[in-house]
Amino acid sequence: MFDRLCIIGVGLIGGSIARAVRLNGLSQTIVGFGRPEDLHNLQTAKQLGVIDEYYLDLAEAVKNVDCVVIATPVASIKAIFTLLQPLWSAQTIYTDVGSTKGSVLVAAEQVFGEIPPNLVPAHPIAGAEQSGVEASLDDLFVGKRLIITPTNNTSPQALQAIKTLWEKLGSLVSVMDAKHHDGVLAATSHLPHLLAFALVDMLGRKDEQNEIFKYAAGGFRDFTRIASSDPTMWLDICLANRDELIPLIEELKTELGVIQNILQNQNGQQLFQTFTYAKNARQRFLDQFEN
Amino acid sequence: MFDRLCIIGVGLIGGSIARAVRLNGLSQTIVGFGRPEDLHNLQTAKQLGVIDEYYLDLAEAVKNVDCVVIATPVASIKAIFTLLQPLWSAQTIYTDVGSTKGSVLVAAEQVFGEIPPNLVPAHPIAGAEQSGVEASLDDLFVGKRLIITPTNNTSPQALQAIKTLWEKLGSLVSVMDAKHHDGVLAATSHLPHLLAFALVDMLGRKDEQNEIFKYAAGGFRDFTRIASSDPTMWLDICLANRDELIPLIEELKTELGVIQNILQNQNGQQLFQTFTYAKNARQRFLDQFEN
Repeated sequence: MFDRLCIIGVGLIGGSIARAVRLNGLSQTIVGFGRPEDLHNLQTAKQLGVIDEYYLDLAEAVKNVDCVVIATPVASIKAIFTLLQPLWSAQTIYTDVGSTKGSVLVAAEQVFGEIPPNLVPAHPIAGAEQSGVEASLDDLFVGKRLIITPTNNTSPQALQAIKTLWEKLGSLVSVMDAKHHDGVLAATSHLPHLLAFALVDMLGRKDEQNEIFKYAAGGFRDFTRIASSDPTMWLDICLANRDELIPLIEELKTELGVIQNILQNQNGQQLFQTFTYAKNARQRFLDQFEN
Repeated sequence: MFDRLCIIGVGLIGGSIARAVRLNGLSQTIVGFGRPEDLHNLQTAKQLGVIDEYYLDLAEAVKNVDCVVIATPVASIKAIFTLLQPLWSAQTIYTDVGSTKGSVLVAAEQVFGEIPPNLVPAHPIAGAEQSGVEASLDDLFVGKRLIITPTNNTSPQALQAIKTLWEKLGSLVSVMDAKHHDGVLAATSHLPHLLAFALVDMLGRKDEQNEIFKYAAGGFRDFTRIASSDPTMWLDICLANRDELIPLIEELKTELGVIQNILQNQNGQQLFQTFTYAKNARQRFLDQFEN
């Protein structure tokens, strides 16, 4: 599919893309790029056979490549675009894997003046609690959802190429606009993580914190697991998607206020309806997941 | 340890107690009691060898027993006390497994005038998403926390007997007052479950619900699992412990308001601190769990 593919940021996601590209024979050569402080990680990636070559100089890294995959945290994407801008080639397809897509489009507009037609923003809904190239997997994206968020300016050929790439990596590809993506992900991923961080922070700071951890039952244990995700990554994501998140937090506060009133008034019937609806939602989720 | 032990309510918890009592040779005979509508369940429990005998008549069920374990939902405990009151024997030790303990003491006071010295309230912190005697396990309580909440009126002999019973079933036994138990459990179990129900209910009702389930990533999937717990049981628990839960919900709304402001002001440093504290709390939890 490609002669030469460059991955900017060879961590869990970038490394797993490289592994899957190799496994599926989609590029002859896979090149990694990182900052000087990423040297050790790039050396590891090469030793593991995840990449063939690496460069700390971006001009060398992207020379003659057919495809550039930006796999760095969302907060760094504007800086990457700025570095790429003088090297930008109409013969190359560019894509990213950022968890928020509106922020990527804003950054591209700021750097390039308009969204380049050969930039195809994408987001694989896959991840793990771990990070780093050592945690990368051949099959991280197999059977997982991947969302592509093109703009009106996106070249149909570039879009098709990125769609094909991800399908060959085993993903279930959907296409939607960036605003819609950010709204859906705020609800399904960003708000739950924020809530887990908030609850664990609140309870952990209480006086009886040792007891709370000692007697932690199912519920809280699951919350602490969600809250053990990488703080830097989630900080970036929550700030980048704050316009979607803030109204959802407001809605949740309202929902919690309703439940407070229900408890105060001991309105068992209404609480039962809420709980039952939520329980049934789980079954709908499982049905969806199996399809 | 006992000649004859009676379990009122032979479900997941009651059945698992019966299994563990038998496995550890703690009672010669294990008797089950249930309502007429529980007949099929009691027959199953006997066929599975979980209990030796069963009765739909409480007077017969508790005749000559050394110990009565009430393993029905918290909302039914007052009704069970009312049935037991005319049959109450000073030679028998009574205990329960309710998830909230203040409500059990209030019910006992209402029915008996004061807390009987031979009633020892207890709460095994163990459970599962499933329910019913078919889901009961020999080792459900092994290595799990169990909290006993005696009163000033509790007989030291009865307390010691229940402590020994649970230690022999493999539990890590703690003793504290009921108010303290209810506060700790509200934080570690009841609030997280309520929050999961609230979030899944709120998101599930949104227009894009099918998309939300389709693209559900790690965070939301975990919430739906927590929210798939038995609605009736959680309704009972949340209503019984509402005095502890309502102020915790208020605190959480405040915490969410603070996070909203942080996002609005893009105060990355403060959000990072919150997330980092929560991530570290997970490690404290794991350390605690391993000790």
